[in-house]
Amino acid sequence: MLNVFTGELMPAAVAVFDGVVVGYGDRPAREVVELQDAVLTPGFVDGHVHLESSLLLPAEFARAVLPHGTTSVVADPHEIANVSGLAGIRFMLEASEAIGLEVLLMAPSCVPASPLETAGAELTAEDLESLAHHPRVLGLAEVMNFPGVVFGDPAVLAKLERFRGRVIDGHAPGLSGPSLDAYLSAGIGSDHECTRLEEAREKLGKGMHIMIREGSQARDLEALAPLVTPQTAPRCMLVSDDCHPEDLLEYGHLDGILRRAVELGMDPIAAIRLVTLSPAEYFGLRFLGAVAPGYQADMVVLSSLRPLQVERVFKRGHLVAEGGRCLLEPRQAAGSLELRSMNIREVDAADLRIPAAGRQVRAIRLAANTLITGEEIVEPAVRNGEVVSDPDRDILKVAVLERHRGTGRKGLGLVRGLGIRRGALASTVAHDSHHLVVVGVSDSDMVAAANALRELGGGLVVVNGGTVLARLPLPVAGLMSEAPLSQVVHQKREINRAVHDLGAALEQPFMAISFLALPVIPKLKLTDQGLVDVELFRHVPLFP
Amino acid sequence: MLNVFTGELMPAAVAVFDGVVVGYGDRPAREVVELQDAVLTPGFVDGHVHLESSLLLPAEFARAVLPHGTTSVVADPHEIANVSGLAGIRFMLEASEAIGLEVLLMAPSCVPASPLETAGAELTAEDLESLAHHPRVLGLAEVMNFPGVVFGDPAVLAKLERFRGRVIDGHAPGLSGPSLDAYLSAGIGSDHECTRLEEAREKLGKGMHIMIREGSQARDLEALAPLVTPQTAPRCMLVSDDCHPEDLLEYGHLDGILRRAVELGMDPIAAIRLVTLSPAEYFGLRFLGAVAPGYQADMVVLSSLRPLQVERVFKRGHLVAEGGRCLLEPRQAAGSLELRSMNIREVDAADLRIPAAGRQVRAIRLAANTLITGEEIVEPAVRNGEVVSDPDRDILKVAVLERHRGTGRKGLGLVRGLGIRRGALASTVAHDSHHLVVVGVSDSDMVAAANALRELGGGLVVVNGGTVLARLPLPVAGLMSEAPLSQVVHQKREINRAVHDLGAALEQPFMAISFLALPVIPKLKLTDQGLVDVELFRHVPLFP
Repeated sequence: MLNVFTGELMPAAVAVFDGVVVGYGDRPAREVVELQDAVLTPGFVDGHVHLESSLLLPAEFARAVLPHGTTSVVADPHEIANVSGLAGIRFMLEASEAIGLEVLLMAPSCVPASPLETAGAELTAEDLESLAHHPRVLGLAEVMNFPGVVFGDPAVLAKLERFRGRVIDGHAPGLSGPSLDAYLSAGIGSDHECTRLEEAREKLGKGMHIMIREGSQARDLEALAPLVTPQTAPRCMLVSDDCHPEDLLEYGHLDGILRRAVELGMDPIAAIRLVTLSPAEYFGLRFLGAVAPGYQADMVVLSSLRPLQVERVFKRGHLVAEGGRCLLEPRQAAGSLELRSMNIREVDAADLRIPAAGRQVRAIRLAANTLITGEEIVEPAVRNGEVVSDPDRDILKVAVLERHRGTGRKGLGLVRGLGIRRGALASTVAHDSHHLVVVGVSDSDMVAAANALRELGGGLVVVNGGTVLARLPLPVAGLMSEAPLSQVVHQKREINRAVHDLGAALEQPFMAISFLALPVIPKLKLTDQGLVDVELFRHVPLFP
Repeated sequence: MLNVFTGELMPAAVAVFDGVVVGYGDRPAREVVELQDAVLTPGFVDGHVHLESSLLLPAEFARAVLPHGTTSVVADPHEIANVSGLAGIRFMLEASEAIGLEVLLMAPSCVPASPLETAGAELTAEDLESLAHHPRVLGLAEVMNFPGVVFGDPAVLAKLERFRGRVIDGHAPGLSGPSLDAYLSAGIGSDHECTRLEEAREKLGKGMHIMIREGSQARDLEALAPLVTPQTAPRCMLVSDDCHPEDLLEYGHLDGILRRAVELGMDPIAAIRLVTLSPAEYFGLRFLGAVAPGYQADMVVLSSLRPLQVERVFKRGHLVAEGGRCLLEPRQAAGSLELRSMNIREVDAADLRIPAAGRQVRAIRLAANTLITGEEIVEPAVRNGEVVSDPDRDILKVAVLERHRGTGRKGLGLVRGLGIRRGALASTVAHDSHHLVVVGVSDSDMVAAANALRELGGGLVVVNGGTVLARLPLPVAGLMSEAPLSQVVHQKREINRAVHDLGAALEQPFMAISFLALPVIPKLKLTDQGLVDVELFRHVPLFP
């Protein structure tokens, strides 16, 4: 057994009663499980994850991660909150009740994420307070609006005030010096956005708990691994932040991150502390993170530490996964009907018209392996007085269509770097407000793609010549599937194959378009309210 | 500056605004304090202390410990609760409001401490719950009734249930193996009763936070110092438990314990962590225990680490002590009038009569440097059919007189080992119910001593030939003085001189008699309900 308090491996018989570890040593028992040479560790705790990124409903997410040793997650329902507000968060609370995985929630602090887009909801300090007393809500989720904190925006301070004395997670990429000090003075306790060792050292030295992120969208472990020493380990964690479904299938979850940590030279025992006792202590979860008397009997059996391999997983004393397979039955998706609406009228070609109002336009430049876009000034192709896509020069029309409130708001623009030669692709996963984003070579395929999503209730779709080539339905708030992991991964692969068949140049074209609408990452982005120059933090016209 | 997160000494300008550290580095400032080569550390936090043992009111205790670097204490008002119940606890909360020292309270879990004595109050689970929501009440104080926990006494479990998920302190001397496991399964988080290294290792390895105690009544640091390693330091603390006034004056407080730790070979930086970040984290005090942005500006300036010497102390950014002197004004003792009652009628010689009912009696044997007593069977001196003191054989009469409820209950017995040759001594500090305990050579001096305390409203007194030789008045609940530390120490020295003039053999006769009534430490004790054989946990007759 791994004793996370002492860092020692020790032989032990662990007695469990009613889901709780009640001691070490032989006891009269109804059932005895022999573990031979295996290593028993506490269940893993992911301290920061957005479940929505998996495209799975919570119960299916549980089935996906339990075989990898994850028995608890602290989730920030930021995505669904931007679509459905409090109703979405309450749905996540209900949908994560008694699913075999402990799902603890943080109240999303920044909905909407920016004033330059139309979120599906606006969460005020009062709204957040209505969540604060739920037994599974631990605190305030990543406070992304760091300028709001540093400059004392009253609405931001009001939210912080409601969570005073509780856990408040940070999100402060690159913040340092006096600005970081000001941010921390508001009581913010953690950061998962460090990408450089020096940055992490400064933040840890100023009291932040450092969540080292190694997920589908960002991988910081290699850079930050040297941060972890016996002195700092209690204030370091490993987290995933975002897990795409194909990564859950191929790479695993926290077990995969642990293997990566060991590859990078970290001692496996030290690494396991970062996904057990460290997050439990940070979040004040006195009953999680150790195999010890009084602790919940969430336990992982590793067949070996090197390579780190999960053999069996116990949740509250029950065997829930074995040999990579979850033993829990799939669950019917209940209660999600209310989140099925796509509040958008049928799209037609007129919605996508861009009258040519000048000889030059701003185009969004996409690039591989980064969410940062560029701005290019190009001469648009014009036909009948309207700007049209020009696949030969890789200049494609893009539209972001408001889908939550039926306002008819839309943003129209041009994008370079996607590289498709025909057809269109569309998605309702479009951070952070998750409107309908559609890119295409012809207006008619863009219209077909948008309307296909409208009928599906959201999702990802690829269209060519008016025909849907592949689809990944995400009927729950346009963000999550009701299908099991294997089917979602299959659909996602089909979608990717289809868009590459259209000539896509990027490896992950859907990820690229899903961040094309996020007006907090530089440089040029498109929201339902139009183009945004993120560095200026304001809207700019298409024709400069 | 000592950075407790990294364990490093670093040069830093610390910016403070409105009582809170707001950052490192130069800032425009109203006032600049130059520290030259001094070391700035966080204010010290004593994780377990009974303020009453100092005989001082909280504001005077604050004045006594602030110059020693202690800026916060977690106090268990167990003593006053046994005298005055909830009213006593509320008095301590009021009396510790805004006194320059942060006084956080734990709700006393075991009042009365045993069913074999008459406490001044009985605190039920409901009573404790009425305290639980006070912003300065952190959790449930040391759960001394470990058999009650282990065997599932419903009244004990009800108290634990009210504090589920909060900090629950333990008190489990020598408990190990399955009994310890059962005790921990109730959610108990700490122990301050370890006296042996192996005991501490087992408890820490099972998840307990270990409070290493080095106080006036017990000193465990030498035995336990090897427990502290970089791995275990976050789960170890240094605490005082009880501080007698003369020790506060001569030895200091946490600074004295730190000096002792360094003498014993501990690195000073490692030791300081045990009185700063470790207790703050254990108690979930997110704003204490570090000098970092967002933390309360409680800071200690050490002129050097070896020897560790406190030069200046800041509380919430204000200089409160310098060069060993507290800069805060003494405070009028307000609100203590309600606790002035000694609910006992005038004592007369008839109250102390022991009719000789046999040729042999049980006598309590006191010994130096231990609270454990022995049982001796002796032949009593008898005069006029009554048992009397026999100073030649060091057999003295002792009485424990109920003083809270006016019941007239009394316990009478004999004690050996005290050694006085004439006169009497009496005290209203008599753990845990704090009745009036009086020992003497003549009944008339015993009567005089008891009635002197009745008039004083409680305290310590030495009498000879009907005259009070020395007195230490403790008018607040019979436990605390309203005088300043220097005067209390002076009175205590006078008291001790007087009792030694009477021939006392023990170094601390008053401490000996104050534990003579505590029926949870072996072997033979005397309560207001009579003699107790602690090993049998029941009353036994004087004449066996």
